[in-house]
Amino acid sequence: MAKVVTFGEIMLRLQTPDYQRYIQAKSFDAVYGGGEANVAVSLANYGHDAYYVTKLPENPLGAACESELRKYGVHTDYIARGGERLGIYFVEKGASQRASNVVYDRAHSSISTAKTEDFDWDKIFDGAKWFHFTGITPAVSDDAAKISLEACKAAKARGVEISCDLNFRKKLWSSEKAGKVMGELMQYVDVVIANEEDAEKVFGIKASQTDITSGKLSDEGYKEVCQQLIDRFGVKKVAITLRESISASVNNWSALLYDGKDFYKSKKYTINIVDRVGGGDSFGGGLIHALLENYSMQDTIEYAVAASCLKHTIEGDFNLVSESEVKALMGGDGSGRVQR
Amino acid sequence: MAKVVTFGEIMLRLQTPDYQRYIQAKSFDAVYGGGEANVAVSLANYGHDAYYVTKLPENPLGAACESELRKYGVHTDYIARGGERLGIYFVEKGASQRASNVVYDRAHSSISTAKTEDFDWDKIFDGAKWFHFTGITPAVSDDAAKISLEACKAAKARGVEISCDLNFRKKLWSSEKAGKVMGELMQYVDVVIANEEDAEKVFGIKASQTDITSGKLSDEGYKEVCQQLIDRFGVKKVAITLRESISASVNNWSALLYDGKDFYKSKKYTINIVDRVGGGDSFGGGLIHALLENYSMQDTIEYAVAASCLKHTIEGDFNLVSESEVKALMGGDGSGRVQR
Amino acid sequence: MAKVVTFGEIMLRLQTPDYQRYIQAKSFDAVYGGGEANVAVSLANYGHDAYYVTKLPENPLGAACESELRKYGVHTDYIARGGERLGIYFVEKGASQRASNVVYDRAHSSISTAKTEDFDWDKIFDGAKWFHFTGITPAVSDDAAKISLEACKAAKARGVEISCDLNFRKKLWSSEKAGKVMGELMQYVDVVIANEEDAEKVFGIKASQTDITSGKLSDEGYKEVCQQLIDRFGVKKVAITLRESISASVNNWSALLYDGKDFYKSKKYTINIVDRVGGGDSFGGGLIHALLENYSMQDTIEYAVAASCLKHTIEGDFNLVSESEVKALMGGDGSGRVQR
Amino acid sequence: MAKVVTFGEIMLRLQTPDYQRYIQAKSFDAVYGGGEANVAVSLANYGHDAYYVTKLPENPLGAACESELRKYGVHTDYIARGGERLGIYFVEKGASQRASNVVYDRAHSSISTAKTEDFDWDKIFDGAKWFHFTGITPAVSDDAAKISLEACKAAKARGVEISCDLNFRKKLWSSEKAGKVMGELMQYVDVVIANEEDAEKVFGIKASQTDITSGKLSDEGYKEVCQQLIDRFGVKKVAITLRESISASVNNWSALLYDGKDFYKSKKYTINIVDRVGGGDSFGGGLIHALLENYSMQDTIEYAVAASCLKHTIEGDFNLVSESEVKALMGGDGSGRVQR
Amino acid sequence: MAKVVTFGEIMLRLQTPDYQRYIQAKSFDAVYGGGEANVAVSLANYGHDAYYVTKLPENPLGAACESELRKYGVHTDYIARGGERLGIYFVEKGASQRASNVVYDRAHSSISTAKTEDFDWDKIFDGAKWFHFTGITPAVSDDAAKISLEACKAAKARGVEISCDLNFRKKLWSSEKAGKVMGELMQYVDVVIANEEDAEKVFGIKASQTDITSGKLSDEGYKEVCQQLIDRFGVKKVAITLRESISASVNNWSALLYDGKDFYKSKKYTINIVDRVGGGDSFGGGLIHALLENYSMQDTIEYAVAASCLKHTIEGDFNLVSESEVKALMGGDGSGRVQR
Amino acid sequence: MAKVVTFGEIMLRLQTPDYQRYIQAKSFDAVYGGGEANVAVSLANYGHDAYYVTKLPENPLGAACESELRKYGVHTDYIARGGERLGIYFVEKGASQRASNVVYDRAHSSISTAKTEDFDWDKIFDGAKWFHFTGITPAVSDDAAKISLEACKAAKARGVEISCDLNFRKKLWSSEKAGKVMGELMQYVDVVIANEEDAEKVFGIKASQTDITSGKLSDEGYKEVCQQLIDRFGVKKVAITLRESISASVNNWSALLYDGKDFYKSKKYTINIVDRVGGGDSFGGGLIHALLENYSMQDTIEYAVAASCLKHTIEGDFNLVSESEVKALMGGDGSGRVQR
Repeated sequence: MAKVVTFGEIMLRLQTPDYQRYIQAKSFDAVYGGGEANVAVSLANYGHDAYYVTKLPENPLGAACESELRKYGVHTDYIARGGERLGIYFVEKGASQRASNVVYDRAHSSISTAKTEDFDWDKIFDGAKWFHFTGITPAVSDDAAKISLEACKAAKARGVEISCDLNFRKKLWSSEKAGKVMGELMQYVDVVIANEEDAEKVFGIKASQTDITSGKLSDEGYKEVCQQLIDRFGVKKVAITLRESISASVNNWSALLYDGKDFYKSKKYTINIVDRVGGGDSFGGGLIHALLENYSMQDTIEYAVAASCLKHTIEGDFNLVSESEVKALMGGDGSGRVQR
Repeated sequence: MAKVVTFGEIMLRLQTPDYQRYIQAKSFDAVYGGGEANVAVSLANYGHDAYYVTKLPENPLGAACESELRKYGVHTDYIARGGERLGIYFVEKGASQRASNVVYDRAHSSISTAKTEDFDWDKIFDGAKWFHFTGITPAVSDDAAKISLEACKAAKARGVEISCDLNFRKKLWSSEKAGKVMGELMQYVDVVIANEEDAEKVFGIKASQTDITSGKLSDEGYKEVCQQLIDRFGVKKVAITLRESISASVNNWSALLYDGKDFYKSKKYTINIVDRVGGGDSFGGGLIHALLENYSMQDTIEYAVAASCLKHTIEGDFNLVSESEVKALMGGDGSGRVQR
Repeated sequence: MAKVVTFGEIMLRLQTPDYQRYIQAKSFDAVYGGGEANVAVSLANYGHDAYYVTKLPENPLGAACESELRKYGVHTDYIARGGERLGIYFVEKGASQRASNVVYDRAHSSISTAKTEDFDWDKIFDGAKWFHFTGITPAVSDDAAKISLEACKAAKARGVEISCDLNFRKKLWSSEKAGKVMGELMQYVDVVIANEEDAEKVFGIKASQTDITSGKLSDEGYKEVCQQLIDRFGVKKVAITLRESISASVNNWSALLYDGKDFYKSKKYTINIVDRVGGGDSFGGGLIHALLENYSMQDTIEYAVAASCLKHTIEGDFNLVSESEVKALMGGDGSGRVQR
Repeated sequence: MAKVVTFGEIMLRLQTPDYQRYIQAKSFDAVYGGGEANVAVSLANYGHDAYYVTKLPENPLGAACESELRKYGVHTDYIARGGERLGIYFVEKGASQRASNVVYDRAHSSISTAKTEDFDWDKIFDGAKWFHFTGITPAVSDDAAKISLEACKAAKARGVEISCDLNFRKKLWSSEKAGKVMGELMQYVDVVIANEEDAEKVFGIKASQTDITSGKLSDEGYKEVCQQLIDRFGVKKVAITLRESISASVNNWSALLYDGKDFYKSKKYTINIVDRVGGGDSFGGGLIHALLENYSMQDTIEYAVAASCLKHTIEGDFNLVSESEVKALMGGDGSGRVQR
Repeated sequence: MAKVVTFGEIMLRLQTPDYQRYIQAKSFDAVYGGGEANVAVSLANYGHDAYYVTKLPENPLGAACESELRKYGVHTDYIARGGERLGIYFVEKGASQRASNVVYDRAHSSISTAKTEDFDWDKIFDGAKWFHFTGITPAVSDDAAKISLEACKAAKARGVEISCDLNFRKKLWSSEKAGKVMGELMQYVDVVIANEEDAEKVFGIKASQTDITSGKLSDEGYKEVCQQLIDRFGVKKVAITLRESISASVNNWSALLYDGKDFYKSKKYTINIVDRVGGGDSFGGGLIHALLENYSMQDTIEYAVAASCLKHTIEGDFNLVSESEVKALMGGDGSGRVQR
Repeated sequence: MAKVVTFGEIMLRLQTPDYQRYIQAKSFDAVYGGGEANVAVSLANYGHDAYYVTKLPENPLGAACESELRKYGVHTDYIARGGERLGIYFVEKGASQRASNVVYDRAHSSISTAKTEDFDWDKIFDGAKWFHFTGITPAVSDDAAKISLEACKAAKARGVEISCDLNFRKKLWSSEKAGKVMGELMQYVDVVIANEEDAEKVFGIKASQTDITSGKLSDEGYKEVCQQLIDRFGVKKVAITLRESISASVNNWSALLYDGKDFYKSKKYTINIVDRVGGGDSFGGGLIHALLENYSMQDTIEYAVAASCLKHTIEGDFNLVSESEVKALMGGDGSGRVQR
């Protein structure tokens, strides 16, 4: 098992209970989550030494957030403390034709005001095998983008493998800015992960024959996207998740993996959704694990998709499943039969 | 935006949590709702000055009920206070092949014992553009039927448009009595709303080629129903909701609109149900809004159906969605994708 | 209505709320249940004098368990008290591709250490018409197997009809031991109930052309199983439930009944699952009721399957439905329409 | 242990959670309770064959209510079914200087419209030793008063001991009417139970030197009350509970017993209140048990007061304590130390 | 009844359930509250036309906040919309020797970045009789202080009575800055409200012979404070609340009122606390109501203290009691006896 | 900060919500706790490297238990995995005169069947400064007693300071056996901790002039107890907690410390109890911290008592307070005033 480092923002997620609208809520369910922290938890669950790097405020919420990471086996040694506040995001869970409604309240968070001196990347990457970040981190602030770049350089210098999930967030930055910043970071990246619309939103690379809103996705179109990402940035592998959103309650879920030579397509799962937040991150976690463990390319994409399929059945951002559970699904048992 | 008046009974709804049966319940979830109040809330959400007229007891439950209407933006100025009690209805929510089980405890409610002097219709309709009531109100008591008639006359005299949802309740009155009382009220009505069985239950007008229990509904049959309602009562428009009840968990939902000349058929939605109580009322609310805003006939029926489709995803009687959310669905995005 | 006796183990079931994993739970929902107690509750709901026989510890949990049975109308007069502890089982409810995860903590329970002198079968069977037990009871301990045998002999001697649900539990015993012990008990049994894999697991009688994990079941294969059970043990009737597990959220559900002469196949229901634990037991309860009431063979299997279909929509182990509700579904109304 | 019969009204109690006001509540905690049912549960807990007699509606709420009585060991064989509705009362729990706020919604309940033919008192009192009712039952309706009188006559004729808790409810009847009706019933009563203000409210017999609102109660004054009750009605024993209401959170609690010869005063407990509803009923239950078991007069009043002291620490109307728990407190251990 | 205006910040309050620490919480109870909004709700409850003025963000949380005010009868017509976010404060409720722990997350809130053009004070004060604000509003930002000053000037110009609760918050500003800003505002203020330490913290006016932490407060000391406030700022009346904090669970509560001539001391209440947040605001609400209604000085202070005593028994920031409930307590009934 | 080791049994604690009795509960609140784990959490909160040693089953409950320890900062590196089950204890929380009712279901737990080879004490104590265990551990099984002895010997050999809380549990063993086993272990112990009755129950050393049930404790009597413990076993320090149980809701709490020369008596706190389980353990945690930090003897006992006073206000077994919170109370602020 390997030392893995992820870097980004973790937030307090406050969700109305059941299917309540904001105006109805008398309480909020509270979990902590964020793209890179979610990946760290996945990797800890699969047995790796996962280190999560961020900055948290010096208050009881920052402490509670850190304790939650520790609970799920993530190492918190390199978390900086200070700054103004913990980012928050509010969620109202969708159902059927009604989409989930997310309200972000993440501005002025500790990580968005962090400085390069908050992190000692040489120490952090000492002995590490893998570094993962997402497009959210550099979007959070210019300083965060700068720190992300430093982290990439330090990782590269030490021979640490680097993966990046494009994770475009239009509420944080424009496509123009994203393209510019991410373009620079991509030079250091070995493995790119994207969902069905990220490549277009960040780099203007559009999948042909695809209409995302109607849930019609074309494999051929996405193969072109992969090829262009490799051509343009020199990355080694591209993985693209393909969500066919039938409704907020039912999604089809599959993915493509391209290693520059062959395309590998996973099985497609039809999922009754419990909680889809963190679905993409759990794919990233599964992918990194499979690559670290040297699975075959086909097994790699199957593992990543099976892992993230299971995530959709779990409440909260974190994918709380074990390697053996993922392998059971990957091996064909999606019948949900009780074992007793 | 217009002043709109609705009149009827609002009750305390007590529902067992989750899918518990009555015998299992240690608590009841409490909301307030009733056919005409639900329409008022819809209209307030779309920006209208919605006034709800009823009679509530002078006790803390009556006060809580009124405050809930106020919360959702409904004007409560014309609500009479007094009488014996607030009507209650208990709900045990169904799932799959098990139907919801409603126990009414509404007899002796304040509105059922209200008298004509409780309401000053001239004042109430001053400046109003629309009046809506349902077949439940006159069914509640002979006095309530008498007040409904007075309200219709007063509205008509002032040129206020009148809509009525037939809403037949066999636990409140017989088809015979309903036919007689509603027949008289229909003379004043401009727009009739009915579900797939109301016209037959109230007026004996049956849709041919239809078996409601099995969920098989015939458009042709319902067109005949519309024509007969116009022929018999001289109403201007008829809208009929078409629920195909696959199970308590999944329904198909669409509607027909007839303006005496052309038929307009809406899209059909397959809905994973969160709470279907108030589904028909949210259709009425959408329809009235669209008519007040002079949407085209096709847009009118699409708006009403999209609005009520969303209602099925919301807990409680009230349809807590905005005009922009309805329009988004009407415009084709039912994929439930998170916006972020 | 008849005096019916069931014998076995009832446990405290502790389930994580909603879809939480064990590691997330801050509380457990608590119900009581067990194969034979579940049948007793079904029969009490249908109007029979159902007596449940077991041994419970002399502590507040034993008392709470007994009071719960009493609440649902089951007679507790013959329950022995004493021993070390109440068995517990923990449940983490599955969803979609994630299966439910059951952790048993039932060793050393009072019933597993009960002795033959704890039960006076002559008194218990006095006036009884039916005796039901399952393959779980003899699996619990050698003493429990011995008591089961005594019960069977006492029942047979008094002309009490005997039914047995094979209910194989691999966490309690091996197929080898099960085959040996159950084989001896089968001599006394009139009606055998099994699910789609019990006959193979207990007696090595496999349905041909069937792959349970993939949800592909063959009627022909199961007919052979029925015939072999009759040939080998001389039982009078065999009923087999056929669960096609599409996922943890959706199952197809039907059954076969064989009376040694003809095969009767029930309707097949597609179920959105609320709680599938106790599904098989509710089938047994329905079957025994139908046989006691002398329904036709086709009605018998339809009643049993409709009863157990409804169970899947009810939380907890017990099937809290009435005979009239089962008959309504059996009669064709599975539309889940609200009656009002 | 003896057969004991109690007769009266049991209601669904709907209470706002924690200390919420009605206007804040999104749910209500639900229990069932009523003066005489509460006594029946106490007596069942102490080991008696307690039969509760009432009339419940033929609907799922009536069934749930009956099942709850059964759960706590009360026999429901003589409960009549029919009528319009189950009575309801709403509770908003007080704290500190804020009193609890009860809203009754009990009019038109099944028991209030019951007729004499609903109950076969000869069968009901067959083998019975004790009959208990309260002043609430005859207050509910003239018919209920008439049935109460019949019950008293039938009990007297069979030599069944009769106790009555005056339990004056000003929301149900006037002091004038109460005095007249209760005066007639008192001729049959052997043991009278009253709280610190009942005798004055019902019969105009006032305790001197007492100001209830300020919590100042005089023993001497209450001794005079006892004497007058015996003089006027020829009852054998009078027990008076003395609640010193320091606030809604803290009460002092003690009682007096007079057997026509000597006065017995109990210990006084200072109680941190969990739920004081049913406090008086639990006193009645303790008193009847002690008298049935022939405790000494001093032990009788101590048992009754200790039992009702414990009731104040238990949620719901019912006093869910065993004889051994009452005796432990009566014997002096009120320290609340954990036993382990 | 009068038109009353209050101005300030309202926040989302997120509280851990029961007595949980932040690190334990899996959900937060959500209410909305803030010093001036709390006063507005009190005044609405007493029957006044209470207008609350603030700025809320254009998002679902801002809308939910506004709907909650509307629910409690507060007019929201003058609320500006826009800005970045709704302020939040987190609460961990104390018990016994453990104090409540408040974490503020209110920086960058919409009201803190509001500009003078957001509010049209001439329109707002049209027809108004009273204006109330607290020391929190000017502390929130320099702009907010500027707007407060403008509001004071506009109110003064129209002859609107002005009250100010000093409400010092050391987490928002220093004593130095507070003294300077508040000193200027005091010129317009008619009625000053302060707690036992505000005068010292804001203006350096210390009560002699007092040790707040130990709960020892001296009436004489506070009389001097009142006199100095009048001497220095020319206000007409000073009211000081006197909280003796025995523990987080039990407080003594009373107040002093000085009209420049005589001192009026209220009764002192010993309170078992349900929720003490908003205690001071409910005092302000009661005081303003009593002054608007021209109560005698003694009745004024008694009403204000009784109102705020009751607040301590109510969950949330708002004091949800009616005038008749306050008068009942003021009239002497603090026994918490149930009325039935 | 120091490496500290504690060893013992941690259990799943299942508690009925609020003040429900077992028979009422539909769910159980779940936490994990046990005497020595509770001490470890205290020490982790104060900044030490706390290692907890036990044996947990290889199932999801064992994993959840370990994750909870990790959440609160306790190192779990030396926890053995295997055995049959996790011990459980059920709690019904008392109130006022009703005591809490604990039902243990801990037999056959993994730690009770652990063997000496499960723990490598040399590795465990490497670098450690302190070892703590309680009288519960050796009571659990003969093997656990044997392991405890080995641990004491290994600790002694390495110069690790040893503390032991006598913690007598009459449901686990007799006073005779406890005296014998604990007597042997005491030879290695430096610091003994006991509550007001342990010394008598384990070693027959009774405090004179004391009646625990009535809450009357004599300081003089306990000084004699301390002296005898030192005389008999040669321990260096004795600390005795003195709980005066006024009721289950209110306790007085203080302690004595004797260093063989002088007696130190702490302040006495009157506590409104939120959760008293773990009260003694939090005292031990505070005492060890103070001794490790070389506080003065008076400060040591004050710190330990203040820490445990705060524990009584916190839900669950663990004392979730920081050193600064303890010091604030110790320094005199028990007023529970909100800081803001």
